[in-house]
Amino acid sequence: MLINNKHFRTIWPKEDNDKVIQIIDQQFLPHQFVIRDLVSLADFEIAIKDMQVRGAGLIGATAGYGMYMAALESSAKGDFDTYLLDAAHKLKATRLTAVNLEWAVNRQLDAMSNVSTMEEKIKVAKITAKEIADEDAAFCKNIGLHGVALIEAISKRKNGDVVNILTHCNAGWLAFVDYGTATAPIYEAFDRNIKIHVWVDETRPRNQGASLTAWELLNHGVPHTIIADNTGGHLMQHGMVDMVITGTDRVTRTGDVANKIGTYLKALAAKDNHIPFYVALPSSTIDWAIRDGLKEIPIETRNSDEVKYIQGLHNGVLTKVLITPEKSAAINYGFDVTPSRLVSGLITERGICPANEEGILTLYPEKK
Amino acid sequence: MLINNKHFRTIWPKEDNDKVIQIIDQQFLPHQFVIRDLVSLADFEIAIKDMQVRGAGLIGATAGYGMYMAALESSAKGDFDTYLLDAAHKLKATRLTAVNLEWAVNRQLDAMSNVSTMEEKIKVAKITAKEIADEDAAFCKNIGLHGVALIEAISKRKNGDVVNILTHCNAGWLAFVDYGTATAPIYEAFDRNIKIHVWVDETRPRNQGASLTAWELLNHGVPHTIIADNTGGHLMQHGMVDMVITGTDRVTRTGDVANKIGTYLKALAAKDNHIPFYVALPSSTIDWAIRDGLKEIPIETRNSDEVKYIQGLHNGVLTKVLITPEKSAAINYGFDVTPSRLVSGLITERGICPANEEGILTLYPEKK
Repeated sequence: MLINNKHFRTIWPKEDNDKVIQIIDQQFLPHQFVIRDLVSLADFEIAIKDMQVRGAGLIGATAGYGMYMAALESSAKGDFDTYLLDAAHKLKATRLTAVNLEWAVNRQLDAMSNVSTMEEKIKVAKITAKEIADEDAAFCKNIGLHGVALIEAISKRKNGDVVNILTHCNAGWLAFVDYGTATAPIYEAFDRNIKIHVWVDETRPRNQGASLTAWELLNHGVPHTIIADNTGGHLMQHGMVDMVITGTDRVTRTGDVANKIGTYLKALAAKDNHIPFYVALPSSTIDWAIRDGLKEIPIETRNSDEVKYIQGLHNGVLTKVLITPEKSAAINYGFDVTPSRLVSGLITERGICPANEEGILTLYPEKK
Repeated sequence: MLINNKHFRTIWPKEDNDKVIQIIDQQFLPHQFVIRDLVSLADFEIAIKDMQVRGAGLIGATAGYGMYMAALESSAKGDFDTYLLDAAHKLKATRLTAVNLEWAVNRQLDAMSNVSTMEEKIKVAKITAKEIADEDAAFCKNIGLHGVALIEAISKRKNGDVVNILTHCNAGWLAFVDYGTATAPIYEAFDRNIKIHVWVDETRPRNQGASLTAWELLNHGVPHTIIADNTGGHLMQHGMVDMVITGTDRVTRTGDVANKIGTYLKALAAKDNHIPFYVALPSSTIDWAIRDGLKEIPIETRNSDEVKYIQGLHNGVLTKVLITPEKSAAINYGFDVTPSRLVSGLITERGICPANEEGILTLYPEKK
């Protein structure tokens, strides 16, 4: 995607030295655009743990490059394989609930196990890291190509008038390697000159909407307006939302959707006002083993300080302020589950399907 | 209500000098407890305009005392009646949408018009200001006495287990003279030793829940937990909310409820999870002239900086921070309308009734 008219991904090998991996350090967004060099396995651990990078796809890609970095380091250490397994263990421990993290690390271990020499392993790790990143971007690109049809249809129905899309949290390119999921159809529509406008839920408590999604859209030039999370229902009641698109952290094989806390409330409002509610995802997000999202998807409780304190810019300096009584308790559930009955459809890299088992299996018959 | 075990109202004449009116300056809550002396009409105008005081009942009571202050000042100025009418005009202009403001000012003008001398008018204004404040507190007290029955019933059904009540925004005693509306049944239940716990929606963008409701409950000793506005649906899905009680800014004669933005989303979630959703109000909040809340209640758009900036405590100093990209647009709708079909009942000073015209008229037959 574009930043100051230059194309960026969220992670890439440095142009003149591919033993250095560069990332956009998202901790400082939207206030400062910082590119950080990752030059050691420890740098990768910190990058994931401290959320310099975050989001399903990007965590996977970072872990992929992290294993390449571990392979580079291994060559200078004692036992190559022992060091590598230790590195895999360390990377997996950085974020416990991230499915893509474990998947990417294991994919690297598998790939390297197919060759024998140290030099070959390093070469394979480098290729595999690039593959993981490229695949992520390609899946997101396809989500955009399928999803844009929904926006185009509304645009036609409105005779070319602005299509208003509401999104929650950041399922944008900052959460992946490029394009994003929820944002992929939006960028595709914008690039095709379809008139669109995005309502950006600020997404308390971590404000990924206000700080990341708004920043992405601003840089790409997509018209958007930030709203408090409380606002979407009112907008829908008054015909100011044509569709909702969100991302997801996990989807059951029956179409229940776990996503950032508050998604369920928007889905209820969309249903109450007959507004289509779509969820965009790469199929790696589908948990084929479970059928009941409310009962089976564990919901992470995060640090309550994320509710009690908020970070912003004060006189040019990033500053954290307390916004509650110091002695009041707070609780911070990270996600909620939107039952499939509230979801109009799933936008995947293979196409759009109804949010139920039959619909999903039409696109993924190999999972029957 | 209690602050450090001392009983307070939100506005009162100074103990040793009733020509000085004191208020709790709510701008600094929850971080600093500041009592401010109002000693001139100009002080009252600033207090309402700058939201040192806010909330329907409290704005009315402040306007009542403001007219008393105007009468005191008038006696030292040229033409008493001209000065008083000018003061009335100035006070009414401080907050355009506050129904109680105009009502209190007019009540003072009417009361003073019934007597002839300057001394009598000042005396009447003093008595009327006290009446307005006392009536507000008495109405809220009655709301508590009626509403507590709902909490008691749930407590019995749960065999004395904790009753979990969710509330949105601040319809607490800080918005009135004492007790509050949504909080009145909560304080009454707590004082009767019914085990309760309150989920406090932080209520973005102005955070009246996190800063005011939490502070009230903390001082009174009521167990409570602050949550992001996104959280209520998840809690309801998992049986962690037994009932919802909110306040309201305006109710139609058919039972539609205008309240702080986001109330509608909680009402939808309550309905979806079969959880009772009650609205507490003094009958002065009912707009007998309108029937369709969504079409007829105007929704105030406030300054977008309330979305983009947030105030909190940093190193002991109140500090405002920017939480969005500087160049992104934001919009700030203050209220939304919850259709009566989602409201389980209205808790008024005369009792509890269904949220429809027939139900309301049973309690207020004089409005038929």
